[in-house]
Amino acid sequence: MPVLPPVSTGDAAAAPHGFATYVGNAGIRDESLDLSIVASEGPCTAAGAFTRSRFAGPSVELSRRNLAGGTARALVTISKNANVATGPVGERDAGELAQLAAQVVGCDPAEVLVCSTGIIGRRYPMERIRSHFRSVRLAPKADFPALAEAIMTTDTRPKLASAPAGSAIVTGVAKGSGMIEPNMATMLAYVFTDAAVQSPVLEQMWQGVVGATFNCLSIDTDTSTSDSAIVMANGVAGAVGEDQLLAALHAVCESLTFQLAADGEGATKVIKVNVSAARDVAQARRVAKTVVSSPLVKCAVHGADPNWGRLAMAVGKCWEDTDIMPERVELIISGFEAYPRPLGEADLDRVAALMKEPVVELGVRLGTGDAAGSAWGCDLSAEYVRINAEYAT
Amino acid sequence: MPVLPPVSTGDAAAAPHGFATYVGNAGIRDESLDLSIVASEGPCTAAGAFTRSRFAGPSVELSRRNLAGGTARALVTISKNANVATGPVGERDAGELAQLAAQVVGCDPAEVLVCSTGIIGRRYPMERIRSHFRSVRLAPKADFPALAEAIMTTDTRPKLASAPAGSAIVTGVAKGSGMIEPNMATMLAYVFTDAAVQSPVLEQMWQGVVGATFNCLSIDTDTSTSDSAIVMANGVAGAVGEDQLLAALHAVCESLTFQLAADGEGATKVIKVNVSAARDVAQARRVAKTVVSSPLVKCAVHGADPNWGRLAMAVGKCWEDTDIMPERVELIISGFEAYPRPLGEADLDRVAALMKEPVVELGVRLGTGDAAGSAWGCDLSAEYVRINAEYAT
Repeated sequence: MPVLPPVSTGDAAAAPHGFATYVGNAGIRDESLDLSIVASEGPCTAAGAFTRSRFAGPSVELSRRNLAGGTARALVTISKNANVATGPVGERDAGELAQLAAQVVGCDPAEVLVCSTGIIGRRYPMERIRSHFRSVRLAPKADFPALAEAIMTTDTRPKLASAPAGSAIVTGVAKGSGMIEPNMATMLAYVFTDAAVQSPVLEQMWQGVVGATFNCLSIDTDTSTSDSAIVMANGVAGAVGEDQLLAALHAVCESLTFQLAADGEGATKVIKVNVSAARDVAQARRVAKTVVSSPLVKCAVHGADPNWGRLAMAVGKCWEDTDIMPERVELIISGFEAYPRPLGEADLDRVAALMKEPVVELGVRLGTGDAAGSAWGCDLSAEYVRINAEYAT
Repeated sequence: MPVLPPVSTGDAAAAPHGFATYVGNAGIRDESLDLSIVASEGPCTAAGAFTRSRFAGPSVELSRRNLAGGTARALVTISKNANVATGPVGERDAGELAQLAAQVVGCDPAEVLVCSTGIIGRRYPMERIRSHFRSVRLAPKADFPALAEAIMTTDTRPKLASAPAGSAIVTGVAKGSGMIEPNMATMLAYVFTDAAVQSPVLEQMWQGVVGATFNCLSIDTDTSTSDSAIVMANGVAGAVGEDQLLAALHAVCESLTFQLAADGEGATKVIKVNVSAARDVAQARRVAKTVVSSPLVKCAVHGADPNWGRLAMAVGKCWEDTDIMPERVELIISGFEAYPRPLGEADLDRVAALMKEPVVELGVRLGTGDAAGSAWGCDLSAEYVRINAEYAT
């Protein structure tokens, strides 16, 4: 098992208490980390949000089932094989993986959640996994940076974020760089906290936070069969203010969303689209996601081209929003109004220069109300094509 | 005005009678052909299908209005400026363009349709257009290959197709290579016939044919503000069998759809997705379009990678089709079953070789019924990104 160097994006001290982790290599695909477990010392309240794919894998189905009661104890992840489209044998393998993890943790298999990511259509190498599990021991002090690394597939860097919530800490890790889209595509995101929070409250907070962050992320509009966003709260640090906890969950997930966008396949820039003056939050987010998903907008950002016509085109794609009227819309690129008052020559140069920055913000004032929402994505580069035309089956 | 060489994709002899054309350069953007007119010697029944964009331009609005009665006489196209997001002055310019064309044709401006394509957000150079119109004369024998060239923007080749319908001929031209998506994105497609057909019949045929062809085409999921597909029938050749006419319209539009896919920006291959055993045609087309639009499927085809997992992922994206069950789905790549029976090693090599061909067919048997439908698209290459990151505003 390789020893991990400390990861600079995480502060190991700022981690919730009462969690243990394991990371290792079970030889799923190569010699990189591919098997990880997070376990709480006691029961947790927990909530999840999962892919809506019709080809959702058995890991997703199992986790959905085990989360139905709003509690969980542990989470096991295989990161180089998605165990999707593997038929009934794939379901059995997922169940056995939960059992193996439960033995290590000392809990009921029904308290274990399973996540998988990687190649579709191949069985887990179960013999190797069984034999590996004989040597699996949890480290009593959770190593979240190591966890962030162990769940990676084509990611180029681990994604980790922490925020305080009163006396508690919220720490999250995420992976994913392709197939990421609204409605959760090959993204795994786990958030752990030692705050005490009741299950229905956590469930409501989680759906709201996921809706405002991960579900407003689009890398390439493709949607994975394995997306899972899970939160577990073990209560070791006691109760904290609901507002404090919600703010911390939001901060952690927004940071992870940004990190996912920045590590989008082939990405050279993050695009953030801010829609305001919308009828409601749903409309604002729908328009923002449509803009951030447009290949032509993504290419324009890649080329640092202040082509606001493409922004108008992308807003126009929301044709079911019949209250959007071109004469009431305002478009803003990197802080400069581009429509209806067109960019002047001098401003054009300034905006083009700003579009070379690592984060490009695009603004749309819809003129249909006073709600707002944002979406995150990345530019489209030739590198995206290279990565995905060469990814071996 | 440049003199056009004969275009090899069209057979000038196989053209409907009773149409006249003009093509020329009015200095819209550069010295290439940018202004064209098609006029019938008498009134035509006519039908159209237009973009659903909320930023639809005044050309689209004007043509929609003038087609409301199911008739038209002439069609004028500006091909290097879309006249979109230009405000009230843009509406006036579109109206004046119709008037100028009506004077040349000798008809009422309300009988003229207007189409535009090109850059968004710039006014037409009206002074130049007015002055150019002084020398515009229709050639009494229509030159459809020249028309196909005159409506091009970033297209690399003209698109032209003809088919007989009894004693009549159906000839179509089309342009478009980016922003093409379901629901008609910067695509202009015009079909002319000398068959006699009543307006309601033509309208119904046209919506059916457009739904099965142009609306099943996706280059990059972006949708233009200017898409228009128009058919005009002048009746000079008399009545023909409805089935004959429908078959000819379908053949011409399917050919144009294929040509548009093949000339998609950066395309090196056409992808045709055939969905069968579907609940209904709408479901078949929806799944086919989802697959053909998937960036990861497009990249896999580009790399000739028989990665059926991506095909499964793309089918899974149709999550509102809750009757799709992975255990009933079958996936076929270039004629070889890839799921549920996985491709063997020898077949993998054969399929990879077939995926290097200029047309790659992907099959999906949904197992939800017995309807079928297809969609057309193209692979995603680094060249697409280059073209669209460098297209100057």
